[in-house]
Amino acid sequence: MTASSNVADRAPRADVDVIVVGAGLSGLTAAHRLRQFGSTVAVFEAASRVGGRVSSAEVDGVHVDLGGTFVGPGQDRILALAEEVGVSRYPTYSAGRNVIRWRGEHRRYRGTVPPVGANLLDVGRIQLTLDRLARTVPCGDPAAAAHATEWDAESLGSWLRRSRASAAARDLIAIAGRTTWGCEPDELSFLHALHYIHQAGGLSSMLDTEGGAQEEHFVEGSHEIAVRLAAQLGPALRLSAPVRSIEVTDEGVRVSTADERVTARTVVVAVPPSQRGRIDFSPALPPVHTQMAQRWPAGVLSKAYAIYERPFWRDSDLSGQGLSDTGPVFITFDASPARSDGPGVLLGFIGGVYAREWDELPEPERRARALSSLADLFGPRALDAVGYIDQRWGAEPWVGGGPTAAPGPGAVVPYAAAVGAPVGPILWAGTETAERWTGFMDGAVRAGERAALQARNILASSSTDHEQTGAAR
Amino acid sequence: MTASSNVADRAPRADVDVIVVGAGLSGLTAAHRLRQFGSTVAVFEAASRVGGRVSSAEVDGVHVDLGGTFVGPGQDRILALAEEVGVSRYPTYSAGRNVIRWRGEHRRYRGTVPPVGANLLDVGRIQLTLDRLARTVPCGDPAAAAHATEWDAESLGSWLRRSRASAAARDLIAIAGRTTWGCEPDELSFLHALHYIHQAGGLSSMLDTEGGAQEEHFVEGSHEIAVRLAAQLGPALRLSAPVRSIEVTDEGVRVSTADERVTARTVVVAVPPSQRGRIDFSPALPPVHTQMAQRWPAGVLSKAYAIYERPFWRDSDLSGQGLSDTGPVFITFDASPARSDGPGVLLGFIGGVYAREWDELPEPERRARALSSLADLFGPRALDAVGYIDQRWGAEPWVGGGPTAAPGPGAVVPYAAAVGAPVGPILWAGTETAERWTGFMDGAVRAGERAALQARNILASSSTDHEQTGAAR
Repeated sequence: MTASSNVADRAPRADVDVIVVGAGLSGLTAAHRLRQFGSTVAVFEAASRVGGRVSSAEVDGVHVDLGGTFVGPGQDRILALAEEVGVSRYPTYSAGRNVIRWRGEHRRYRGTVPPVGANLLDVGRIQLTLDRLARTVPCGDPAAAAHATEWDAESLGSWLRRSRASAAARDLIAIAGRTTWGCEPDELSFLHALHYIHQAGGLSSMLDTEGGAQEEHFVEGSHEIAVRLAAQLGPALRLSAPVRSIEVTDEGVRVSTADERVTARTVVVAVPPSQRGRIDFSPALPPVHTQMAQRWPAGVLSKAYAIYERPFWRDSDLSGQGLSDTGPVFITFDASPARSDGPGVLLGFIGGVYAREWDELPEPERRARALSSLADLFGPRALDAVGYIDQRWGAEPWVGGGPTAAPGPGAVVPYAAAVGAPVGPILWAGTETAERWTGFMDGAVRAGERAALQARNILASSSTDHEQTGAAR
Repeated sequence: MTASSNVADRAPRADVDVIVVGAGLSGLTAAHRLRQFGSTVAVFEAASRVGGRVSSAEVDGVHVDLGGTFVGPGQDRILALAEEVGVSRYPTYSAGRNVIRWRGEHRRYRGTVPPVGANLLDVGRIQLTLDRLARTVPCGDPAAAAHATEWDAESLGSWLRRSRASAAARDLIAIAGRTTWGCEPDELSFLHALHYIHQAGGLSSMLDTEGGAQEEHFVEGSHEIAVRLAAQLGPALRLSAPVRSIEVTDEGVRVSTADERVTARTVVVAVPPSQRGRIDFSPALPPVHTQMAQRWPAGVLSKAYAIYERPFWRDSDLSGQGLSDTGPVFITFDASPARSDGPGVLLGFIGGVYAREWDELPEPERRARALSSLADLFGPRALDAVGYIDQRWGAEPWVGGGPTAAPGPGAVVPYAAAVGAPVGPILWAGTETAERWTGFMDGAVRAGERAALQARNILASSSTDHEQTGAAR
């Protein structure tokens, strides 16, 4: 259907300046900035809550972040936004020793390098090589790397084998990969891994607690940022309103849900790449966009929180940070509230190969296995949880997985540009479209702010052609 | 929402026995067989036409198959169905010599093995090895292969490199892969490649014209089979009716489009795997299903047809079958009508890396490049086409690509079972769910027939619990 066939039923002016599809952190940020610019917006969210991959729950009076949690140095945009809406942060607990369960043995260690025996030198070699290669991949344009085609043709796992990485190095990278992308090394384009590492400031910046991306979390919870942004929107935000179609018209776009049809000059689609395929675009998107949406799947990462009367591990000079070469929980953090009189909260991640099995279990079985993993790391007291909650991101209907997209071999060089490239008045947001800190909450905020600027440019150029819209909602 | 909360607004009996989602060859076959069993059906198709990945057009009075075209020995179910609805077939023209453009040179050859010089022995070695390994992968259950995890961890491309395949062998396998899966060897799970080869009866069976899967095509066109099946359905078939949601209820399912809500005992979802993610399932599907739909993308394969006054290549003792190590057209067939005085028709495939670029071009440019490729193979007379049409499957909104799903490394062992595993009353069809000839029209028919049997079993078991439904449409 061409736009011109619809002149008769089209309103002469747009209902709003900009429609935002998706009320995750990225879409909400875009809407927030656009309103600060003086534009009118309508925000459609498919789920019955805001936040997207940021969510929260209360268990026995304790707040937990079910999705994106941590922030660190260099993540300026999420930090600025949190301050702007009055959400404060506190350091991730990291005093004492970390614990690792490796090849059936327990060890305790300080700092960020786990004691994996004679292979420690090789771990350092692999990390240095990854960091060095990553710096050759231009941020925001991985296909422009000199070795882009070669690196996109193989997986992170195949590169590790080709580099004769020791089993310890391979297993540690697999742990890092499960946390970061929710997949196994063999599933991920090596070029994507390198690009991701570069734009997150290197492996240490990406993986560390102190000085890294896990340095702090939010007192009120990350979800509170989304809640406060949403509150400002009032009736301009529609929940439980999945967008069914986006039509490009002569004057902009027409966006339809089951109940509503709204026109705007431009639309910001702020959903994960694989969810874009659920919207009917008219005219159809260029094939490269349709194909990208089928090739940038969400990873598989779940979280389990165990609540204790006290953070008992601290008594044994343990930080609550743990690593394991078995599952289902393979990495842990102390996520206790900021106050010192307890309770204690352990956060365990279940990802990649472990999540695929664990996610399919009923809740009591998931709980039993998660607590058993925690007991492997912190002793039998970890079984005495007074509260428990988990979040399987693969079971979230409008998200499809977490924490971020994990494109496989061959999916970056042909498709990376389509992740963020506007199609006429259709703009894209979401953390996958960020040029820095993609995959993190900071990337979501950056992408939303960039999309807001792109939308403002479209509005500015169209206001020279058309009368300025006077509509407000 | 649980089923029990809806007792009040649920009709006591189902509107129909079975709902079929998708009127491709698989869904139409399922509906056809179910009606033969005496069941009532409703079929919902998102597009405005039936056929799915089977489609047709007329150019200057010449019929062409825009999608699935060829059939061969062993494809018993499509052959039986075609006979049943009165669609006849004729041999693919293959008299004379084939032509290959390789490393900048033209050669002519007879039979199925192209003359790629000194590397011919290595091509044979690679083919034999692939066939031998393929036979160790159980049809319909690739994850049960002894080396499943190892082979799923790498791509077909990485296996070729590891096997030190010559450049000629690698390039020939790449051509076979573009035609078969619409992707480059580096994008495809090696386990999937092996499984696919096995269930198609080996590489020769899969790739050959005489004696293989390209041996014949249909006089009236493959699409005519779908058209005749659809005609029998009458008002039970709804076109332009995308299914938005499928709810599981105590008594079966409730399926909703924008305009309609229909209940049934069971539903057969017969859409490509990556399109399943567009339907809202309630309750949500198990995560492994949601994740599979994000990891089995449609390939990228397009077709170009050039119509000539006469099949001029036959005058030079050429079969019209050609291969090229450059693009955009990399493999050709003579698709002229069965009559001898006819126009001549060349069919060229554009797939994988070539299609990604070519698909984005405007039609005149696509035509110019396709004809230029044909002229490279068949001489400048190929430029004098009197008619031209192409089909970019990546631009088809409810299909997303072609010819079939191309899962990447790591996407087979965890997810292959979910492609066909029923979820309560939700059954799956489509060629990807077939245990034999998956990816072919025959697989679509087989899958539809298997789903019809599964549905019949559900109806038989529920009729012992409930009154038999008397509804008919």
